[in-house]
Amino acid sequence: MKVIASRENPAFKTWKKLAQSGHARKERRQILLEGIHLVESWHTAHGMPPCLLASEKSRARAEIADWLAAGERQGAQCVVLADALFAELSGTETPGGLIAIVHLPPAPETPATDIDSLLLDGVQDPGNLGSLLRTAAAAGFSQVLLSVGCANPFSPKTLRAGQGAQFQLRIHETADLAAFLAAFAGSSFATALLDAESLYAIDLRPRPVAWVFGAEGSGVRSCVLAAARQRVRIPMPGAQSVESLNVGHAAAICLFETLRVRGQ
Amino acid sequence: MKVIASRENPAFKTWKKLAQSGHARKERRQILLEGIHLVESWHTAHGMPPCLLASEKSRARAEIADWLAAGERQGAQCVVLADALFAELSGTETPGGLIAIVHLPPAPETPATDIDSLLLDGVQDPGNLGSLLRTAAAAGFSQVLLSVGCANPFSPKTLRAGQGAQFQLRIHETADLAAFLAAFAGSSFATALLDAESLYAIDLRPRPVAWVFGAEGSGVRSCVLAAARQRVRIPMPGAQSVESLNVGHAAAICLFETLRVRGQ
Repeated sequence: MKVIASRENPAFKTWKKLAQSGHARKERRQILLEGIHLVESWHTAHGMPPCLLASEKSRARAEIADWLAAGERQGAQCVVLADALFAELSGTETPGGLIAIVHLPPAPETPATDIDSLLLDGVQDPGNLGSLLRTAAAAGFSQVLLSVGCANPFSPKTLRAGQGAQFQLRIHETADLAAFLAAFAGSSFATALLDAESLYAIDLRPRPVAWVFGAEGSGVRSCVLAAARQRVRIPMPGAQSVESLNVGHAAAICLFETLRVRGQ
Repeated sequence: MKVIASRENPAFKTWKKLAQSGHARKERRQILLEGIHLVESWHTAHGMPPCLLASEKSRARAEIADWLAAGERQGAQCVVLADALFAELSGTETPGGLIAIVHLPPAPETPATDIDSLLLDGVQDPGNLGSLLRTAAAAGFSQVLLSVGCANPFSPKTLRAGQGAQFQLRIHETADLAAFLAAFAGSSFATALLDAESLYAIDLRPRPVAWVFGAEGSGVRSCVLAAARQRVRIPMPGAQSVESLNVGHAAAICLFETLRVRGQ
């Protein structure tokens, strides 16, 4: 197996650029997947990554060695990096020992207007976005629309929080949420603090459903709110002490309440 | 109003140490609250902070000026810092313009065994912990027990994610969760992936209730699981594509389902 120990190695330089620069990742449509869990999620969705990197220290660990062997059998480029170089590619303090370099699949075409959908308006925090994607996948909401201003769903932080849910979803970036809602063939609900029905008073049975959640702080923009059929609030007994829930927590409550009402 | 422009100023040195060192905050039981929202939350719970800092740039903003004026009227030490010095105390890229220095209230005594309680076992991520505290406060679960290994509930990151919910809660750190559960006077539920009842099949009506959630990844430790009356899972239609929910999302679903069943 090829071993790279020099920072001047051209392949290493390319990977380092990908690790450090969102712009480079966007331009090349390539991303780094760090850790066995993310590599596995990718493998389930898209097959063996074309390139696998291990560190000198990690290559002997059975689970990493298995991945490298499987990668070589299936024609992946498998490379061992000196520990210091591997650490430079890693975004975590305790590098997981395995990194895959993959090409993002082409962005999906026009969103479907007849399936359960999660719409996010300006969710900027990568951790919030990643855990929201994970919850959407867990709830079986396979289509997600992100407005302009949302975090990048494939950045290292978002991937870490999403634990690879990204690869199970159709994610539409820079989507026009109001236009989608206008065309949507089912019920649509947006969370709001004012002039809103209780989550437990609305009819969540008809399918499909589109749920809209807004930016931390400012909430769903009014143009998007206006396009949703109904404004919804989560009743909070402690509302006098906190103004609102974390956007991901609010979404988890609403999506799983939808499933409960359906008897899923 | 006093203006500080020198890094050598002894008060500034003390504040900088508090801003940078968890150890210093712990030793002095003093913390920094950054941003109007956090200062307001503190004020609601504990009254005017004894010390308010503004930056030269922010002091003219009406809302900051109002705080400084109110602080001076009520005997708080109000100081304007040169912008560069203020930025050194700030943990955010876009400093909010107001920082309060406060003494943490004494840790609460023995936890009550007859009120709704949230128990967290090894939740290490400050963002997760903060948003969990916010959800507990929103749900009216006013008592929270944190095991050894949880993030510090009063660190800058946890405060930011909790938006001051910390000040509305009785938080017991380094708590013995198993011993508390053994003494608890109501139902207790812990989330688990195996050998667990559906959230929608358990009886959530009796009060009080204690809910236990575990570390990202490893879940609730078995010694704590064993002390809970029932193991609970959240049914997930997309379980084949993601293993679990973010711990905060799981807790939000369970706490608010408890409230829904109670008709709250």
